[in-house]
Amino acid sequence: MSGRRAIIVGGDAAGMSAASQMRRVDPMLEVIVFEKGDYVSYGACGMPYYIAGEIARADDLLALRPEEFSERGIDVRTGHEVLEVRAGARVITGKSIAGHAFSERFDYLVLATGGRAKVPSLPGADLVGVHTLRSLNDGIALREALDRGQVRRAVIVGAGFIGLELAEALCKRGVRVCLLSRSDYLLGSFGRDFAQPLFDELSRHGVDFVTRESVNVIEEADGRVAAVVTDRGRYAADLVLLATGLEPGVELARSAGLALGCSGAIAVDDRMKTDTVGIWAAGDCIEVKHVVTGEPVHVPLALTANRTGRIAGDQVGAASAGKTSAQRFRGTAGTLIAKVFDYTAAQTGLTLPAAERAGYSAAVFSQKSHTRAAYYPGTQPLWLRIVVDRRTRRLLGAQILGREGVAGRIDVFATALFKRMSVDEIYDLDLAYAPPYGPVYDPIIDICGRAMLEL
Amino acid sequence: MSGRRAIIVGGDAAGMSAASQMRRVDPMLEVIVFEKGDYVSYGACGMPYYIAGEIARADDLLALRPEEFSERGIDVRTGHEVLEVRAGARVITGKSIAGHAFSERFDYLVLATGGRAKVPSLPGADLVGVHTLRSLNDGIALREALDRGQVRRAVIVGAGFIGLELAEALCKRGVRVCLLSRSDYLLGSFGRDFAQPLFDELSRHGVDFVTRESVNVIEEADGRVAAVVTDRGRYAADLVLLATGLEPGVELARSAGLALGCSGAIAVDDRMKTDTVGIWAAGDCIEVKHVVTGEPVHVPLALTANRTGRIAGDQVGAASAGKTSAQRFRGTAGTLIAKVFDYTAAQTGLTLPAAERAGYSAAVFSQKSHTRAAYYPGTQPLWLRIVVDRRTRRLLGAQILGREGVAGRIDVFATALFKRMSVDEIYDLDLAYAPPYGPVYDPIIDICGRAMLEL
Repeated sequence: MSGRRAIIVGGDAAGMSAASQMRRVDPMLEVIVFEKGDYVSYGACGMPYYIAGEIARADDLLALRPEEFSERGIDVRTGHEVLEVRAGARVITGKSIAGHAFSERFDYLVLATGGRAKVPSLPGADLVGVHTLRSLNDGIALREALDRGQVRRAVIVGAGFIGLELAEALCKRGVRVCLLSRSDYLLGSFGRDFAQPLFDELSRHGVDFVTRESVNVIEEADGRVAAVVTDRGRYAADLVLLATGLEPGVELARSAGLALGCSGAIAVDDRMKTDTVGIWAAGDCIEVKHVVTGEPVHVPLALTANRTGRIAGDQVGAASAGKTSAQRFRGTAGTLIAKVFDYTAAQTGLTLPAAERAGYSAAVFSQKSHTRAAYYPGTQPLWLRIVVDRRTRRLLGAQILGREGVAGRIDVFATALFKRMSVDEIYDLDLAYAPPYGPVYDPIIDICGRAMLEL
Repeated sequence: MSGRRAIIVGGDAAGMSAASQMRRVDPMLEVIVFEKGDYVSYGACGMPYYIAGEIARADDLLALRPEEFSERGIDVRTGHEVLEVRAGARVITGKSIAGHAFSERFDYLVLATGGRAKVPSLPGADLVGVHTLRSLNDGIALREALDRGQVRRAVIVGAGFIGLELAEALCKRGVRVCLLSRSDYLLGSFGRDFAQPLFDELSRHGVDFVTRESVNVIEEADGRVAAVVTDRGRYAADLVLLATGLEPGVELARSAGLALGCSGAIAVDDRMKTDTVGIWAAGDCIEVKHVVTGEPVHVPLALTANRTGRIAGDQVGAASAGKTSAQRFRGTAGTLIAKVFDYTAAQTGLTLPAAERAGYSAAVFSQKSHTRAAYYPGTQPLWLRIVVDRRTRRLLGAQILGREGVAGRIDVFATALFKRMSVDEIYDLDLAYAPPYGPVYDPIIDICGRAMLEL
């Protein structure tokens, strides 16, 4: 043993990525992970499909079991909540679920404290039958509530990707779903002007989508939830899911005196170092650089969580082993994809309002295209929208919606954002063509051609 | 009228793209298209699906009818073969299918003479029942042969994308197919080491794939084809398709004294200008710059044909209107995609042998990955292979094979080739993730990570 010890707070994607990577780089390093919940290293993004019953058991979502981490030399302690970081003394203290206080010294600390479901401060938000979905425990609670068979009507508050994925999951469980949103957008930026087919898809599957209403109170009857009351209506519910976003879990960081960024998340450099010697942070609790604007943003998405965890682990492992790590975080484009029944909606980079807020003189172009050659059976409509900087003609963002052909195309746009490509450059790409996969001028090329003419 | 006249030889993708674009740029320009066949502006890539019966009528493949071109001010003359270009005098001469000689002067000439199926000089290659597939007339002849219901066994010579697409089409028509190839590769570069599932897919659908055999003779019985005889066997056939490649149609260019390139195709600059004043060329008859090597190559693919046609048209239109055209051809990556029964195979850039021939010290990495999160129902294997320059770590090429998730991913690699990205840069991309679309580290990221470790 090198005699050095790393402690990781949080055993989800970022924490366990960090743990695994630091052991890979320095097999002599002692690594302890403290996780306050019961599970580590689970596929949080799979929970909607587990709740829908498409994935049989919660265990199926576990990437590795605690004993497998143990075989990798990682000491995983679930049910252990870290309550204090004494940065100067390099000690953490906490309490186990059994009520035992614990305290450990560290040479290196990685905070992977994740995010926390934003719970609006509403009367009734703590009623039985009101759920959030963040941890696997939350997912199991939701599934169990459905398995008991007494849920006939659910209200989901929030139409982000968790709200939408759960709307689908609950429909599949035979529940009548009402989706409530303060805004008139799905996924934050898919409005009726562009994404009407997505709204229609919700209707087609019996989801009531109620927009521009704010929840005032959650009503109770017989000791559990009975209805959600907004500024304009009352919606009966046996189950309520609050899916109004994720905020960074920064209490520990704040109390330890670590610098937070403008977004409220922990500030780190491109090596995941905080402003405090010996402490790194990764995952949904940090802010990272946006690849388009260069500004720090809090975009809690799975790939960034895994990736920043791995980078933090690499840095710690290298520090411990007396090596240097070349791993850096190069930026997020906020690339997002969600399955909504038979549709896929995806986004990367900036929307028009975000581009304008960032100071760009931006233009937006929308186009309806097709997923296969016009004459090829089964061709489906594909809707694309791009945001372009008028001055440099550079792509700033893209959104795509369709029943097929969305996933790969959004990644082409994401690649273009990383390389700061203009629409003229994208237009010249030699993209794959055969009739089952698109028109000869791919929709990507087509919409850039249109932008070139109109800019 | 400006009094100026442009003549286009060839009415397929490149020729008609040129015609449409030059009229857009200069509505005063007189545009005449001479096409020796019966059809213009058809989706040649759709012919396999028409032959399979998935597309009902040959007319469904026509993008526009001659009368629609006439409305656009384009004079389309089908059944007119141009036989001579007198570059100095700016005159073409030819003969119509009715036997009438014609002669026209031009101010601007675009040669879009296309490609021609390579027909091996074999005894029996001209027998009744021996087909090639190049023009829509060829496609109609094949479909009619099948519609007569007397084809039970077919031999396809050549396992490129036309051979493979026709193997599938003929299977769908209930024909027993034997696919013969001189090499042990499908699509020129998908060998058993990488693409065994594609070979298995052919077997699963009853296609006999015979490799490493050369055709010696095509045998006749009762005045029509009866069998294909190779150096190692005899294969009974009611129908034979020779799908051994495409060569550029350059007789007219050669006789007019135009320079040809190393590939044997017409040499043009990035504006599609030939070496002769007043003459442009576009489509399958030209060679273009390869985006990886910078060298001229003859890669007859649909997008390049359309695109070079449009560029030639833009240049001619601009010349006629006294404007300048900004359109340039930026290069081909040879991006190719083919549906082979339930599989999709795609390729972009250089294969390892091609990279070595081009002088790179190249490394190849292969990886089996998955199209969805491990726990997500219906996940399919996905095979990727990348070729990387050892010195610069730059991506040189990629191949992907799978049942889903191939089309978009090959385009990410194609984009990376255009921007000369290293595997390190590709690894850092923020690609879309949700469980129905891939693992959290996309297969693209995963294989680049592997290359980074091993380079």
